[in-house]
Amino acid sequence: MREIGPDQLEDMARGAGILGTGGGGDPYIGRLLAQQAIREHGPVTVVDIDEVPADATVIAVSAMGAPTVSVEKIPAGDEEVRALRALERTLGRRATHLMPIEVGGLNSMTPFIAAARTGLPLVDGDAMGRAFPEAQMVLPGLIGVTVAPMAVADDKGNTLVLQTTSNHWTERLARTACVEMGCAVSCADTVMRGDQLAAGLVPATLTLAEDLGRAVREARAAHADPVAAAADLLGGVPLLTGKVVDVSRRTTGGFARGDARLEGLGADAGRVLDLSFQNEHLVARRDGEVVATTPDLICVLDTDGGDPVTTENLRYGLRVTVLGVPCDPRWLTPAGLALAGPRYFGYDHDHVPLPHRPPEPDAGDPRTTGPAGVGGVSRSGSG
Amino acid sequence: MREIGPDQLEDMARGAGILGTGGGGDPYIGRLLAQQAIREHGPVTVVDIDEVPADATVIAVSAMGAPTVSVEKIPAGDEEVRALRALERTLGRRATHLMPIEVGGLNSMTPFIAAARTGLPLVDGDAMGRAFPEAQMVLPGLIGVTVAPMAVADDKGNTLVLQTTSNHWTERLARTACVEMGCAVSCADTVMRGDQLAAGLVPATLTLAEDLGRAVREARAAHADPVAAAADLLGGVPLLTGKVVDVSRRTTGGFARGDARLEGLGADAGRVLDLSFQNEHLVARRDGEVVATTPDLICVLDTDGGDPVTTENLRYGLRVTVLGVPCDPRWLTPAGLALAGPRYFGYDHDHVPLPHRPPEPDAGDPRTTGPAGVGGVSRSGSG
Repeated sequence: MREIGPDQLEDMARGAGILGTGGGGDPYIGRLLAQQAIREHGPVTVVDIDEVPADATVIAVSAMGAPTVSVEKIPAGDEEVRALRALERTLGRRATHLMPIEVGGLNSMTPFIAAARTGLPLVDGDAMGRAFPEAQMVLPGLIGVTVAPMAVADDKGNTLVLQTTSNHWTERLARTACVEMGCAVSCADTVMRGDQLAAGLVPATLTLAEDLGRAVREARAAHADPVAAAADLLGGVPLLTGKVVDVSRRTTGGFARGDARLEGLGADAGRVLDLSFQNEHLVARRDGEVVATTPDLICVLDTDGGDPVTTENLRYGLRVTVLGVPCDPRWLTPAGLALAGPRYFGYDHDHVPLPHRPPEPDAGDPRTTGPAGVGGVSRSGSG
Repeated sequence: MREIGPDQLEDMARGAGILGTGGGGDPYIGRLLAQQAIREHGPVTVVDIDEVPADATVIAVSAMGAPTVSVEKIPAGDEEVRALRALERTLGRRATHLMPIEVGGLNSMTPFIAAARTGLPLVDGDAMGRAFPEAQMVLPGLIGVTVAPMAVADDKGNTLVLQTTSNHWTERLARTACVEMGCAVSCADTVMRGDQLAAGLVPATLTLAEDLGRAVREARAAHADPVAAAADLLGGVPLLTGKVVDVSRRTTGGFARGDARLEGLGADAGRVLDLSFQNEHLVARRDGEVVATTPDLICVLDTDGGDPVTTENLRYGLRVTVLGVPCDPRWLTPAGLALAGPRYFGYDHDHVPLPHRPPEPDAGDPRTTGPAGVGGVSRSGSG
């Protein structure tokens, strides 16, 4: 258990933006919103999964929509809490804890807004270990937890509560409502008991995001390589360092969809990397060959500063490095791949394991050598 | 207070189909569904508005969608009750009475399904005195009753509950959900207290529908003119008797929209009547001149049998007579016309009063002479 004040959110938002794999919302906007809520209402208590009582009622709060819209559409500020209260009325009981649904620049911060405004503790973990575009793409679904009942609130004061027969229907109905409500809404859903969290969540991803953001910041301050620091912490594999030369992006069906092309620079000169995204990066092709696919993380970082570059911020001329990071291993089970593997998104190939990581010069610390990935990173390195 | 068994529904469905002004759903399907529910669960108690206690909780149950879809998509049967229960959970209290939201072949019958299955009494009246295509087009809106909270249930087992800032947002969000759910859903909404019914509803429209259906049936059995019997009862003005020669219909945005052209026969030979509809008939032009507009009722009847012809059943060659029937006078106030006048639907003209009714040969009974309309027809003629 620890308290998070506004100043700690800067590292966390940066790290969450990297882990958001191009999606999960803009870390700058997410951080400003959460910092304002904490300044107004006081610090947020973050608890580890094993600190949550077995009979706790844990509810995920998040933003839903197209990131291309949420960078421009100003929230009213009370959407998360209105969604939470609407869901609680349906449940007939109050939340005892909140949790993030995913890791992302906005969606790791959104729960801080609701936690600050309600005084509820926030669980250190999330339902994906990354960001995904659709509501049914959550690990608790693999242990039988449903996304619905789900409450959706817009900036205008409208709310709706869904009860559905499947997570796919939840996604479908929530998405059409989201589009009609203006393509950026807040949600409360995925009601879990405390004793379901260990099996259902990826633990300690807020701490991981903070560690990652700090590592990038400290490397930058030390004039070291911030991208290498991020790759080391995550067991990430560099896929290409280069320049964005083309972006095709459209906001359709409630998502920011598109493709981007990078041309290699330096050691990667002459190589080309193509990224395809639906809010999040889904597939990376290097010189025509698939080198990384969902559900592994495809993280795009500003080469000089190590800051995350979300899909809606990709633009011509940006110098970026693309990292492949192993996902939580539950995503690679048949059920996990059925939810979020490349074939679900319409690609005609299976999941392709990430390339091997180049050997470390100073092997020894298990945290920084093997491809630890999101599920494998210990949360012991922070406090 | 009276009990309605399955056999009484035939007249009522026919009359409601006529008053549904082309929409409100197919009377054949509506009647079959309601008759089956009453056979399974027992008769339904229908109460007059002045029999409802002041503190009663009255909830409207109805079908929403495109009639072109609801004639083909088989309901699961429990949608109305699931919508009702979802709304009651949100309210935190149970309905004491149900009511129809509109008069229509399906939507005068839908409340009987829910009333039979729940044992709740059904109020004799409705919120329009006809059928209208959009959720905000209800007279209780003129006295400050909101449509939301509104529950929507589909045939697959999904439900949603809306809380909105305006009836227009309720329509917008419910309509998009309805389309995504398959364009035919059931709704529970427009929660009223018993003491609001007199000001908010059009009274005794179930009785009016039954009287109308009986008048048509009896005229037919007596080899008299069933259309004239309907016109006499309603104070309706015959606009044209003729043949359908063209229908253009599309199911779009969750509605059945289109136009139909009639060529006159007999005394109307040489005349042409054009109808425009959005689920319901909105405007009638005779030889290019507007002769009837929403919110007045434009009723299309089979010339020989007097049965209602809904917009989805209009087809080439049908011999029909079109009646204009005065609407409830509250619809002709500025607020009523803003909700459901021709300009709301995009026509560039104001409401046009119906042509004068030809004088009756046997004037005397006020019930059958003046243009009484829906609001003006006394319910004393039945019991």
